[in-house]
Amino acid sequence: MTPQLRESRFLKAVRREPVDTTPVWLMRQAGRYLPEYMEVRSQVTFLELCTRPDLAAEVTLTAQAALGVDAAILFADLLPILRPMGLNLEYHAGEGPVIDNPLRTAADVDRLSEIQDIQEMGFVFETVRRVRADLPGDCPLIGFAGAPFTLASYAIEGGGSRNYENTKSIMYGDSGAWQALMDRLVPTLIRYLSAQAEAGCQVVQIFDSWAGCLSPSDYRRYVLPHSKRLIEGLPEGLPVIHFLTGNPALYPLQREAGGDVQGLDWRIDLAAGWELVGHDVAVQGNLDPVSLFADVDTLRDRTRQVLDAAAGRPGHIFNLGHGLLPTMDPEKVKLLVEMVHEMGGDGGAA
Amino acid sequence: MTPQLRESRFLKAVRREPVDTTPVWLMRQAGRYLPEYMEVRSQVTFLELCTRPDLAAEVTLTAQAALGVDAAILFADLLPILRPMGLNLEYHAGEGPVIDNPLRTAADVDRLSEIQDIQEMGFVFETVRRVRADLPGDCPLIGFAGAPFTLASYAIEGGGSRNYENTKSIMYGDSGAWQALMDRLVPTLIRYLSAQAEAGCQVVQIFDSWAGCLSPSDYRRYVLPHSKRLIEGLPEGLPVIHFLTGNPALYPLQREAGGDVQGLDWRIDLAAGWELVGHDVAVQGNLDPVSLFADVDTLRDRTRQVLDAAAGRPGHIFNLGHGLLPTMDPEKVKLLVEMVHEMGGDGGAA
Repeated sequence: MTPQLRESRFLKAVRREPVDTTPVWLMRQAGRYLPEYMEVRSQVTFLELCTRPDLAAEVTLTAQAALGVDAAILFADLLPILRPMGLNLEYHAGEGPVIDNPLRTAADVDRLSEIQDIQEMGFVFETVRRVRADLPGDCPLIGFAGAPFTLASYAIEGGGSRNYENTKSIMYGDSGAWQALMDRLVPTLIRYLSAQAEAGCQVVQIFDSWAGCLSPSDYRRYVLPHSKRLIEGLPEGLPVIHFLTGNPALYPLQREAGGDVQGLDWRIDLAAGWELVGHDVAVQGNLDPVSLFADVDTLRDRTRQVLDAAAGRPGHIFNLGHGLLPTMDPEKVKLLVEMVHEMGGDGGAA
Repeated sequence: MTPQLRESRFLKAVRREPVDTTPVWLMRQAGRYLPEYMEVRSQVTFLELCTRPDLAAEVTLTAQAALGVDAAILFADLLPILRPMGLNLEYHAGEGPVIDNPLRTAADVDRLSEIQDIQEMGFVFETVRRVRADLPGDCPLIGFAGAPFTLASYAIEGGGSRNYENTKSIMYGDSGAWQALMDRLVPTLIRYLSAQAEAGCQVVQIFDSWAGCLSPSDYRRYVLPHSKRLIEGLPEGLPVIHFLTGNPALYPLQREAGGDVQGLDWRIDLAAGWELVGHDVAVQGNLDPVSLFADVDTLRDRTRQVLDAAAGRPGHIFNLGHGLLPTMDPEKVKLLVEMVHEMGGDGGAA
């Protein structure tokens, strides 16, 4: 890593060092709300966009430049990793991802293969190389993957779910199958994220987007050991942002599973969330994304509220509590980034 | 109220008095998983079922008798109260409720009328009278309504929602319209629940099913004062169960808004949840409903875990953390009720 990257505002905050102002990036910053994205997207399918390094790199870079955020995040999706493992993933317009051979039994799990040659995901690493080559020298690039539970849920449900009946049925009812599934996912994810880092990512985020449907005791028993194994298996010195959404009661356990930065959603006040995960880790979050539909004064108040809740100690990366929505106004999003830079900062407190 | 009702296991637990075993009822106990319900439902539309006292009473009573639960809950829906207020509510097969004239502006809110004559909901009170007449003499009847926030969300979104964009936009952006909406809903709900009690309900539950999408500071500012006004406006001595789902960080505020019994969903361990709401109120919950898809041994373990978390003090009403699902096995549901009665009890501790 270059000294310029190492001393970037973003990576300083990751290490809980004082910064001149609060670093900010936004989940789904390269997404449908951005006209530049829509123009590229209109030419190809979603899956093609994910798998074509030229286009994926373009939308990654465009978003970073347009918003002036302190980090870029690789444009990719959580689910394509499941394809070389044997699942028939497609994206249907308006419906989102669909897997027509979901895992419902122990036998189904047995036919899932751990990826041996991670170069089957080579298009992702090529995207990383292209983005890294063209990003500003002081702008870190974030790689990412789904957490084992979230990927398992998609693989079992075959798409979105309201109650996670199939996932929980396997989890509660067939601990052997659950363990076997985790045992295939975890090493695959370690290879996948390690290869992203090797290709040029300075930090990785693990998205446990669906874990909020779990009780603390279920998370502890069925999820925590596997997320922990994943995080512990990553290259030494690679910073990890660990994010889950939908249940603040899980935050102490999210922390226990690991990560240098704990991502918090908006369901908890940031100060309370930081206390739950401990002041000896950095935090990321946590503006309610819907705040972007409010008028500018309200948006400013709500942004200040998040910054105030983090003030007094270094180690805060500003973000939304969840991703940007397609109907958001790109100008408002840019304004939010400016507001954070203008009002942010930890006062140099150590 | 008769002495038999007053001394029922259920109402003793509401008052945090010692009981012989833990009382139990299940959200959506009169629902689609039950063949007796489906038979009645097959003859009429959902809205007709809600508005015909003979049928609504039948499904209420059948479920209580089939399961052997310690309370019946009025068969009704959260939303029909919005019709006499001026909203065109329909239930579309497979899609759920749809309102084709949702409230999106202050002017829309102005055309919503507070219900003056609560007898426009007379079919509900007639259902209560019929159920009360035929229920076992020691079985309390629970009435219910949606909380102001949850009803407002439906009225504004016009149906289900993922991000509550429209609701939060009004809430954040037009405090006058939000206040006006609350000012119409709260008195209407006070009249509605009071009339249910007068017709024969011994307790009422307030469902804030969608409040989990809010941060604690937003809940405190936009929701708590109105839920509190509602609860304080109910007849003296009428016990209130206050239930919200989707965000354990709100439980201390749910308690602050009021209620004799605090409903907890499964996202938090019951012991931790009880501590958050305070040991000087009763609690209701909180088995993950999906546990009913597990094998009997697993179901028993998970049920025992909830009972153990509540043991040592009176004031626990067993329930799921959310409603029963249509694909559940009625025999398993009955077994769950038996398990609670068999393993429950507070040891007579006071």
